[in-house]
Order: sequence, then structure tokens, then C-alpha cells
Amino acid sequence: MSHGSDILLSLFIVFVAAQIGAEIVQRLKLPGVVGEIAAGCVIGPSLLGWVQPAEALDVLAEIGVVLLLFSVGLETRLGEMRRVGPSAFLVGVLGVIIPFVLGSLWAHGSGFDWAKSLFVAAAFVATSAGITARVLQELGALQRQESRVILGAAVIDDILAMLLLGVVTAMQSGETLRMSHLAIVLAEAVGFVLVIGLVGARVMRRSSAWLEAPINPLSPLTIVLALCLGLAFASTQFGLAAIIGAFLAGLIASETDQRDTLEHQTQPLLALMTPFFFVMTGTRIEFSQLANADALLSLALITAIAIVSKLVGGFLGALSLGSRGALIVGVGMIPRGEVGVVVASLGLAAGVFSPRTYALIVAMSLLTAMITPPVLAILLRSKAKNAADPTARHNGPPVD
Amino acid sequence: MSHGSDILLSLFIVFVAAQIGAEIVQRLKLPGVVGEIAAGCVIGPSLLGWVQPAEALDVLAEIGVVLLLFSVGLETRLGEMRRVGPSAFLVGVLGVIIPFVLGSLWAHGSGFDWAKSLFVAAAFVATSAGITARVLQELGALQRQESRVILGAAVIDDILAMLLLGVVTAMQSGETLRMSHLAIVLAEAVGFVLVIGLVGARVMRRSSAWLEAPINPLSPLTIVLALCLGLAFASTQFGLAAIIGAFLAGLIASETDQRDTLEHQTQPLLALMTPFFFVMTGTRIEFSQLANADALLSLALITAIAIVSKLVGGFLGALSLGSRGALIVGVGMIPRGEVGVVVASLGLAAGVFSPRTYALIVAMSLLTAMITPPVLAILLRSKAKNAADPTARHNGPPVD
Repeated sequence: MSHGSDILLSLFIVFVAAQIGAEIVQRLKLPGVVGEIAAGCVIGPSLLGWVQPAEALDVLAEIGVVLLLFSVGLETRLGEMRRVGPSAFLVGVLGVIIPFVLGSLWAHGSGFDWAKSLFVAAAFVATSAGITARVLQELGALQRQESRVILGAAVIDDILAMLLLGVVTAMQSGETLRMSHLAIVLAEAVGFVLVIGLVGARVMRRSSAWLEAPINPLSPLTIVLALCLGLAFASTQFGLAAIIGAFLAGLIASETDQRDTLEHQTQPLLALMTPFFFVMTGTRIEFSQLANADALLSLALITAIAIVSKLVGGFLGALSLGSRGALIVGVGMIPRGEVGVVVASLGLAAGVFSPRTYALIVAMSLLTAMITPPVLAILLRSKAKNAADPTARHNGPPVD
Repeated sequence: MSHGSDILLSLFIVFVAAQIGAEIVQRLKLPGVVGEIAAGCVIGPSLLGWVQPAEALDVLAEIGVVLLLFSVGLETRLGEMRRVGPSAFLVGVLGVIIPFVLGSLWAHGSGFDWAKSLFVAAAFVATSAGITARVLQELGALQRQESRVILGAAVIDDILAMLLLGVVTAMQSGETLRMSHLAIVLAEAVGFVLVIGLVGARVMRRSSAWLEAPINPLSPLTIVLALCLGLAFASTQFGLAAIIGAFLAGLIASETDQRDTLEHQTQPLLALMTPFFFVMTGTRIEFSQLANADALLSLALITAIAIVSKLVGGFLGALSLGSRGALIVGVGMIPRGEVGVVVASLGLAAGVFSPRTYALIVAMSLLTAMITPPVLAILLRSKAKNAADPTARHNGPPVD
């Protein structure tokens, strides 16, 4: 009956490491997420080796980030998202083009042929919405216009990154590229987002009574959690990240009358599950591949390219918010996090990347994820000084 | 980026099946847990095959039952547990001896040699606290004396079952049995429970301020969740089930000032995670092995033995509660659930059981798990008519 005791130990270690890491960095006035990722670096295979990669931990991490984006969706109003549509679109598009161009130039300059360079560049493209969403939520900044632009842009970014990855994978493996196929993939993804956002929201607005119908007293929550899991899965069927579907599920669930209760009830779920996502992100780094001056120099260079390219793309796209707002948006788009890791893994599996390039891209993704939160926190806090009620939700929404 | 989409689909199916199953049976005035197990039978490999066994699902199930017993512990007062100590001890001991004796007689009668018969009998012994705890919680009956006796007896039952399994495994494989070794194992397990129950409770009673110290506004919850995972792991190191440690964690966490908040915050966690436990329990049944009259007859017989033996053991042990209270305790001890499945799996792996015996024992475990909740509900509801405020928490505690 000691069935599963190894995994219980891993759960315990990951969870406790996250709490300790978050507490330490919060005492240093940094966002807690930085401490959770750092905790993952420390307990992961590269340093202490207390936690080894395991499918079950990856699933918990996935559930964690899905719930996180769901709760971010819950705190976001659909109508307000629509209002920032044009800025979000511009940020999404420029935030894909500029990193892709700079990334492929760097890759070609460091010796890859053009087909492989484009593949490498794809790892520079996709923003990890999880990191930024967590910081915005932690600082109680989800109601700001900049936050809405960032979240909307993250959806567009994910659609474009998915298309781009399809294109570069095909080019790299020598397949012929059919524009008609690409157009269908694009139309399906955009259609999915629009149908959920428009029809789904309308359905949810009228379903408040129906959510209370089941005997289970927690049924509004269980029904929207089912919706969250269902849309998370559905979005992967359209080539999008699971978190996009989860975000949409939260967005339309926030149209119901039970919105506040749902927000409230989601907090304990986040407390239990999201640490797995951030800690497991941190465990992926491989210090051994980076332990020489040459690799560190390359890392510094590609991290600089990754940061500057997204920052410029986001800044230019969001200029309508004023230069400070545009800066916040630009910084918010910087983290690559797990998305860069996924592209790097695909590249490694396809034989496009060497283990060293893989380690470089993973490290770049983590570095952007670690650098963004403190900068974003400084920008948001200094801006909050001029706003009304600036610190009300400073440490996240209270529960009870 | 469609990483992990298969598992997302499984999560969605399991979660939705649980909600539908629970809703249907609750409309038929049965406890929801019956519907969740039945849903597992339907979507499992034996019927629809929509969900296949997967390590990640088992881990979620384990987390689900760990959280369930943690929350049951939270709703239980340690002082009141102590008061029912003697009855619980008697129920635990008789509830192990009688099923073990009857089980080994049946096994020997159906052709096993004595060493193997004792192993088979071990599958009749261990009560699955998860099923009964869920029913008691669902009916708001955790504050009753009978519930406390059942929970206390489940702890004793688990210690004795663990010892017994050690003994029969050794006998079956022909190892020599060292009484000194057994005495140490027993002393360690009892010591673990006593140290946590006494020292842990004292520490927790004084730690309310300390639980609020971290910056994380949910820190009382995250700290006790860490405690829950830690003690769940620790109890497996003493040969006990993870749920025993989780129950103890809840029990001592209920000594803190934050008890009510913690109970409240645990509800959404149960809503998300416990369905995985009950649905996955249901998926383990193998109908194909039971599809003949002979097998069904054997199943009826061993299920009857399993039910009567535990019922009598529990009833005799709890006679001090009066005959009706003793009946409730006896019924509450009946479910074997996942514990019978674990013993059956060990037997299959060790070559002691044929696939047919394995299927029989799994089916018996599930049948006892399905039969108990309705009977327990009838007994508790009819008893509630004579008590004050009988239906206040009929559908579980409200959240918000």
C-alpha cells in the first residue's frame, strides 16, 4: 500500500520549494513567480536533482497553467477586451515579425542554413502568457488597459506562432508548402477564437440559472471547470496552446452572474496547482551545457535579441496607449517561458538543434521569464502611484 | 504546441463523466459517489474504453483521495476522536479478524493452499476509508459519534491490514517470519500516528500566528497543504496508506484558528480532484472475466462474505453506541474500494491469483463500495429524523 509514494515525495518537494522560493523573493520585493522558477532550477536535475522529469508532474504543471489562464480570463471582461482589439492585434503581429526577423538573422549569422535559421527563429517568437499573466494577477493589475492589450496580443501571438511553426517545420523537412492549407489552418484557429468569444459569451450570459440546476452545491464551479478543460483540449485540436482555450473559457465564464463566486473559488485551485507549472519550468535548465565563456556569450546575445525584439514589437504596437503604457505592454510580451522550451524540444527531436543550441534556447526562455516580472512590477508600481486605489489588491485578491 | 492534448481529453472525459454520473444518481436519491464509480465503469476499458489507464490519472486520483481525507480530518475534532478511542479500537480489531478468518476459510474451501488462502483473505480485510468518508461528508454526518468511530477504526484497520499483508506476503513467498521485525513495524506505525496526533496537534494549536506570517495571502492554506502532502508521503514510509497521513494532517490542522477558512477553501479543491479518484476506481473493473454464471456465483458469495464479515466485526465492536449506531458503524466499514484492488494487484503480480481471482476481488471491492453508500444514507437519514437540525448540511457545506 506504499503505492505511489515516490510521486508523493516529488509533489511535496515541488510544492514546498515553490512556497520557499516565492517567499524569499517576495521579501526582496520581487514577484513570487521568479522565486518559483528559481526553486525549480535549484531542485531540478541540473543542480540538486531532487526532482526528476515525470509525466505526472508535467500533467500537473499543465493543469496549473490552464487553471491560471482560466482565472485570468475570469478576471477579464470580454467587452473591454474588444475595445483594445486593434492595439492587441498590432502588438501581436509586430511582436511576431520583429523577433522572427532578428532571430533568423542571428541564426544565419551563427552558421545555420536559411531553412534551419527560420526554425531557430520560431523559438524567439511565441510569448508565454503564463508568466506575464501571473505577474499581472499577483500585482492586481489585470483590470488595466495594458493588461488587456497584453492578453489579447498573447492570443494573436499564439495563432501566428502556430502558423509560423507549421511553415518552418515544413520548410526544414523539405515538404512543399501549400498556401491553401495554411489559409485553412489560420481560418480554423481564428474561427475557433471568434466563435467561443462571441457565441460562447452569449450562451454563458443566459446560463446563470442553468449553472445552479445540478444538485451539487458547487455546480457553477464544476460546470465551468469542465468548460475550461474542454476548451483547453479543443484549442489544442486547432493547433493552439491549451492555455488559449482555458483563457477563453474564463473570459466567457466571467459573463455569468456567478463570476465573483467563481473567482473566489478558483484561488485555492491556483494555490495548489500553479506552483507545479512554474517550478517544472525552472527544472528544465541545463547548466552543464552553458558552463563556458563562449556559451555564456551566446546566451547573453540571444537573450538580448529576444528581449529587444519583443520589447520593440510590443512598444510600437501599443503606442496608442502612450509611451509608458506601450513600454509596459512591450515588457509584458518579453517572456518566452515554456513556449520557447517546446519549440526547442521539437528542434532537438527533429535534429535541427544541437544539445548546446537546445540548452541555449531553453536558458534564453527562462532568462526572459525571470527578467520580466521584476521589471514589470517596477513599471506597474510606479504607474500605480498616480492611479486611484493603487495597492488594494497588491498581494492578490483576498480569500475569505 | 499540441503537447499533452491526449491527457487533456482524458481529464475532460473523466471530469464530465463524474459530474453526469453523480447528478443522475443524486436525482435517484443515492449518494453522488455511486454515480462517479459507475461512470468509471462505463467509460473505462471494460465498456466504452474512452479512458485508458495512465500514470498521470492515477496520480490525480491519489491526490484526490488524499485531499478528501485531509478535508475529512479538518472537519473532525481530535478531542472527540480520543473520546471514541476504545470503540474505534474494538471496531478496527474485530473488523480485521472476522473478515480475515472468513476470507481464508472461503479461499481454502475453493482450493487454495493455506499460505495462498491467507493472502487471498488479506484482500477481504482493509476498509477503504475514502468511500465512507465521502458519503459521511456528502450527508453532512461527519460530526456524529458513529462517524468518528468509523474514522478512528479506519486508522487502526489500516495499521493491522499493513501488518497482515506483510505477514501473508512473507509466508506466501516462503520467507521466515521474524516476530521482532513485526513488532518494530507495528511500533513504528503506531508511534507515527501517536506522535503526529499528540505532538503535531500541540504544535498546530500554537502556530496560528505563524501560518499567517508568509507574504502569500493564501499561506495558511498552502502551509497546511504542504503538511498534508508531507504527512501523506511520511505515512507511506511507515507502511501505511497515504490517506492516513492526510487524515492526520487534516486532524491537526483543524486545531488551528484558521480551521473554518481552511474547510471553506478545501471545497473547490475537492470539487476538482476527488472525481478522478472515484472514476478511476470504477475503471478498474473487468466485466469480461465475470461474464459467466460460475463467476457471478463466486462473486455473489465472496461479496456476501466481505459484507457480512465487516458488518459483524463493526457491529460487535461498536455495540456501546447502541444497536442502531453499531449498525451504522458496521455498514460504514464495509467498502473495500481501492484497497482491495491494491491487494489484488499485488496477488496478481506475485502469481498468487489467476486473472479470474483478480477480477473477482476487484469486482467484490467495487460492489462493496457501490452497495455501502445507499444503505449508509438510508440509515443516517432515518436516524437524522430524530435529531436536531437534520438536513442543515444535507448537500455538503455551502461555499460562499
